[in-house]
Amino acid sequence: MLYDTPRAPNPRRVRIFLAEKGIELPTTSVDIMAGQQFGEEYLAKMGSHNVPALELSDGTILTETVAVCRYLEALYPEPNLLGRDPLEAARIEMWSRRVEFQLMLPIAAVSRHGIPAMKVLEGEQCPEWAEFNRDRVVSGLAWLERSLAEREWLAGDRFSLADITAICTVGFMRLIRVSVPTEHAATLAWMERCEGRGTMVG
Amino acid sequence: MLYDTPRAPNPRRVRIFLAEKGIELPTTSVDIMAGQQFGEEYLAKMGSHNVPALELSDGTILTETVAVCRYLEALYPEPNLLGRDPLEAARIEMWSRRVEFQLMLPIAAVSRHGIPAMKVLEGEQCPEWAEFNRDRVVSGLAWLERSLAEREWLAGDRFSLADITAICTVGFMRLIRVSVPTEHAATLAWMERCEGRGTMVG
Repeated sequence: MLYDTPRAPNPRRVRIFLAEKGIELPTTSVDIMAGQQFGEEYLAKMGSHNVPALELSDGTILTETVAVCRYLEALYPEPNLLGRDPLEAARIEMWSRRVEFQLMLPIAAVSRHGIPAMKVLEGEQCPEWAEFNRDRVVSGLAWLERSLAEREWLAGDRFSLADITAICTVGFMRLIRVSVPTEHAATLAWMERCEGRGTMVG
Repeated sequence: MLYDTPRAPNPRRVRIFLAEKGIELPTTSVDIMAGQQFGEEYLAKMGSHNVPALELSDGTILTETVAVCRYLEALYPEPNLLGRDPLEAARIEMWSRRVEFQLMLPIAAVSRHGIPAMKVLEGEQCPEWAEFNRDRVVSGLAWLERSLAEREWLAGDRFSLADITAICTVGFMRLIRVSVPTEHAATLAWMERCEGRGTMVG
């Protein structure tokens, strides 16, 4: 059973990961904007207020997007999304983490600390941190453009978790009303390649 | 060749990882407080301003601590630190990430945005963000205590990368003059168990 929620970028990473592998899992939707993940019942069961969470048939719970993906990759190895050998696996992890830190965290800061309705996700907000991160989103996008100018897919010559992380991160910018600049040709072409796969579920 | 730097928590994660496996790698020290990682030479070579970085004999570069550790684990599989089966691997990754988000990021915020000398690491500082995170360090420590009260090691019944992440995170608190509260008996006992391994290199 997958505990999922629409719109947020991390649960979407898992949904695209599953779509790439052609798997459907039974799903429970968590209303994060109503704070359901902070309820005692959710916390007691998951050991974390994070969504997504994966419940195995014996009741074991896994949270943290990449941990969930890594487990699913072992169960459903094809198509491979986490690397076929140690070097490729390290490279995919490296690029996925770079996207998280260079772009996903700044966007999360701008939205979670700058949009009043997102207060439920943070408890308290730090508006100065939201403002501070606006420039980092811009420089993160420039970094992504430079990275994608060098090759077809983020971590090398084939689609991987790193691309999933990046496409969900870029999609997440809608919330803060930022889009990829029209002059970022490499990023826009890469986004089209991703969309062309037919697996970039919402 | 490992590009390393003293005191910072992430390079220390790799040093402890190597000590656990009994490996020594040739090392180059990077002076991060002088901003060497922002120099053109470092950036051009590593593709990132992060330390640690691992340079393979063919010149391939890996950055991002956990990506580096994952590659080293494939090369030197014993003792296993990243999981022996898919479920254990997912659990170790989950706990290591939880520590990063619940405790390492708040400590990093307090230090990197609150200590004037750390400005070199961020370019600009957001002092409000440093203040905002002081409470999160306290709640992160309480979360760690609850987690360690349930078992001997963070991710289960044996020492793993999750413990390495946590011990480096707790050690990193020296910088912001916070220590584990004396009433956190489970955390203090776990720290002693870690130290007893003889591999918690500085």
